[in-house]
Amino acid sequence: MSKKSDKSEDKQDTMEKIVSLAKRRGFIFQSSEIYGGINSCYDYGPLGIELKNNLKKAWWKEMVQLRDDVAGLDSSILMHPKIWEASGHLEGFTDPLVDCKKCKKRFRADHLLESKGIKPDFRQADFKKHKIKCPECDGELTEIRDFNLMFKTFMGALENKASEIYLRPETAQGIYVNFENVRMSANKKMPFGIAQIGKAFRNEITPGNFTFRTREFEQMEMQYFVHPAEAEKWFEYWQQQRFEWYQKMGLNKAKLKLRRHKNNELAHYAKAAVDIEYDFPFADKELEGIHNRGDFDLKRHEEFSGHDLKILDEDSKEKYLPYIIETSGGIDRSVLAFIVDAYTEMEARSGDKDAKHETETVLKLHKDLAPIKIAILPLSKKEKLEELSMSVYGQLKENYMCAYDTTQTIGKRYRRQDEIGTPYCVTIDFDSLEDKKVTVRDRDSMKQDRVNIKELRDYFREKFGY
Amino acid sequence: MSKKSDKSEDKQDTMEKIVSLAKRRGFIFQSSEIYGGINSCYDYGPLGIELKNNLKKAWWKEMVQLRDDVAGLDSSILMHPKIWEASGHLEGFTDPLVDCKKCKKRFRADHLLESKGIKPDFRQADFKKHKIKCPECDGELTEIRDFNLMFKTFMGALENKASEIYLRPETAQGIYVNFENVRMSANKKMPFGIAQIGKAFRNEITPGNFTFRTREFEQMEMQYFVHPAEAEKWFEYWQQQRFEWYQKMGLNKAKLKLRRHKNNELAHYAKAAVDIEYDFPFADKELEGIHNRGDFDLKRHEEFSGHDLKILDEDSKEKYLPYIIETSGGIDRSVLAFIVDAYTEMEARSGDKDAKHETETVLKLHKDLAPIKIAILPLSKKEKLEELSMSVYGQLKENYMCAYDTTQTIGKRYRRQDEIGTPYCVTIDFDSLEDKKVTVRDRDSMKQDRVNIKELRDYFREKFGY
Repeated sequence: MSKKSDKSEDKQDTMEKIVSLAKRRGFIFQSSEIYGGINSCYDYGPLGIELKNNLKKAWWKEMVQLRDDVAGLDSSILMHPKIWEASGHLEGFTDPLVDCKKCKKRFRADHLLESKGIKPDFRQADFKKHKIKCPECDGELTEIRDFNLMFKTFMGALENKASEIYLRPETAQGIYVNFENVRMSANKKMPFGIAQIGKAFRNEITPGNFTFRTREFEQMEMQYFVHPAEAEKWFEYWQQQRFEWYQKMGLNKAKLKLRRHKNNELAHYAKAAVDIEYDFPFADKELEGIHNRGDFDLKRHEEFSGHDLKILDEDSKEKYLPYIIETSGGIDRSVLAFIVDAYTEMEARSGDKDAKHETETVLKLHKDLAPIKIAILPLSKKEKLEELSMSVYGQLKENYMCAYDTTQTIGKRYRRQDEIGTPYCVTIDFDSLEDKKVTVRDRDSMKQDRVNIKELRDYFREKFGY
Repeated sequence: MSKKSDKSEDKQDTMEKIVSLAKRRGFIFQSSEIYGGINSCYDYGPLGIELKNNLKKAWWKEMVQLRDDVAGLDSSILMHPKIWEASGHLEGFTDPLVDCKKCKKRFRADHLLESKGIKPDFRQADFKKHKIKCPECDGELTEIRDFNLMFKTFMGALENKASEIYLRPETAQGIYVNFENVRMSANKKMPFGIAQIGKAFRNEITPGNFTFRTREFEQMEMQYFVHPAEAEKWFEYWQQQRFEWYQKMGLNKAKLKLRRHKNNELAHYAKAAVDIEYDFPFADKELEGIHNRGDFDLKRHEEFSGHDLKILDEDSKEKYLPYIIETSGGIDRSVLAFIVDAYTEMEARSGDKDAKHETETVLKLHKDLAPIKIAILPLSKKEKLEELSMSVYGQLKENYMCAYDTTQTIGKRYRRQDEIGTPYCVTIDFDSLEDKKVTVRDRDSMKQDRVNIKELRDYFREKFGY
């Protein structure tokens, strides 16, 4: 076997271990599992939702709380259908599909072309010229037709054209149509941004790679409104900001890259685009896109809504339509990247004698992202010890998401906490009854501090910053 | 005019003021407003999303973080369609509708009956017997037919029966189908609960009362799994817990009540139900329902999925299907209740001489819910003062959502902060340059403390608890 295939097997193996850990420890479950599952939808378990919420909180703090020039928003998933005409989604948000005339199976035309090594310029491609047949039964394929990726439903009592609405395929449009409402109510001066976290839905024909590409997903988007002459500057600025944020939150810099789109890759709305990519076990894939969308969006919404969305510059008296710099990140795929990146296998090191020769898994998550911040572990179930431990637990859980665990050996309990990324374990032993001190163990350095119970709150405030 | 109608006009007036404040200050906007709006969908502005997030955070802390017997979950909106067969929604989650044969307008049959003073036992009611005609054109009405309230869409490339799925009308079912996954991964012993916050969708024919009843809404639900013999005890327990929580978060006790459902009001799944109602300006309306659902849900999911969902009691060796006690709260209507309850008009009191005789609005929100925690207000725009003010702002915003405002008089600025419920204003004046102290004003007591800038973080930690 070549070195390359070894590596790719290792990577597949890593993904399998992560999917298994995610289910076993309650990070991510297949949706509707007892019903056989539903393709490409996932549920976040007790630890997964903490991790996801922590990620959202960190993003919101960075993008809204710490900034004067960005305001938050939460627009609804169901919006006026004309918005999707204006945005271009109704017409252009499509995948090219072909059917097999013989076995009736359906395929993405661009994927079939790619698999034959043909550049998927599918709108012009002639399947017959390239003699492309059904990959399953060798049957003849239909013409390519465009399939819209928006989920459609009906609002009101009738199911007809007039009541058709869509599940939003991106949160961005909810921001654009609220541009004036936010600017006026939050009294923002140019340039400023609007940030939003929320669900979006795309009826993907080929979702996959666990939670990387799903039909229901969550976005963290920020749209920054600028004078056209400053668009290029802000486009550069936001690339750097966002690239650095993923590193600050703990992703390995060597696995991250900025990839600039070539002109023929650009979406219809984009003047320039850069992806922040992460080296997932299955491929380098996009975590977030930073786009210079020009004035495409506001111009279209002016046209379709009849509202003037221009800005009057008080000094120059110039009236202009702002350009938009967008930072559009995927929450589910970021959660996955943080888990993948944190996943570490090492020689047993937890001090559990029974497990000396086993491999231990440590999830080296940034402490702001870790689902459980502190685990309280009484050395035994003796009443006096549990009493003291419960009081320590009661004191700490007021400010931190904590776990309390009394089962099995202390070594096994350390390993269980390491596996879910808990940064600190507090052990209460018989000495604690005398000296009123506990042992705090650091997940990564394995360093142990003996801390006075009275000073524990300050000790952790120092560690977590709150 | 009678006293009663005076009161009801006052109440309408209050709602109008609240809707206007909500838009003007950026709490809540009509969705898709520049397109003429979309019925019954709303967007949360910069302040609204902070308030909503604070409410979610407070609920999560109370229901998950502080409890050992409740685990969190975040299940997807799109689920396996068979779940809605099992839950009874496909068959029974309907409104009774009639059409006018002449003008083609559509009406809720139960509402038409109610408007004639007839008890809306509509399934048996004979419209002809009661001679009920179209209220618009006096035309003849069709037979009553059931209209399902679930939004339907199609997953995958084909639009047919096999690809039909639904937007969940409640988050609860996502919890039930994950009962085993959560119990195993979080290692929970009976009794225990699963808590979830998330969106749900109902194609209501008559939504209304601002954000009270909307087609897209957010729920905060907790499902508590218990031994059948303990169901009544836990049903009582959770009523009290939830009733007290709304008071703890600041709602006026006199405006809250517990209303027990009569037997003929109970939903198909419920053995007993209690509503926590709030005295809104438009009526006493439900904020949250506490239900004893018996074993209806798990029994149905056992039957439809073929999975054994029973619990083995380790001591008695008894195998049993848990009963479920549900606490199901509406986030949007709770946000509305907290705004309504906090809304206070009082004589001008902010020290702004120009405004002595004007009425001032104060939003007396609980400090944990207030969108902005601290406003930093330099007395003038002098450079030295702004420099010091910015450094105070920079220090505080690390831990608190802050505002920085230099426009207009200090009195007007206090009033702007009062109107959005900011609990503390920090004023930096020329003395501050000398003594390194600032003035902290309390929204409710109007009391002013002179605090050393170095001690400001500790001062607010004391106030907020973090």
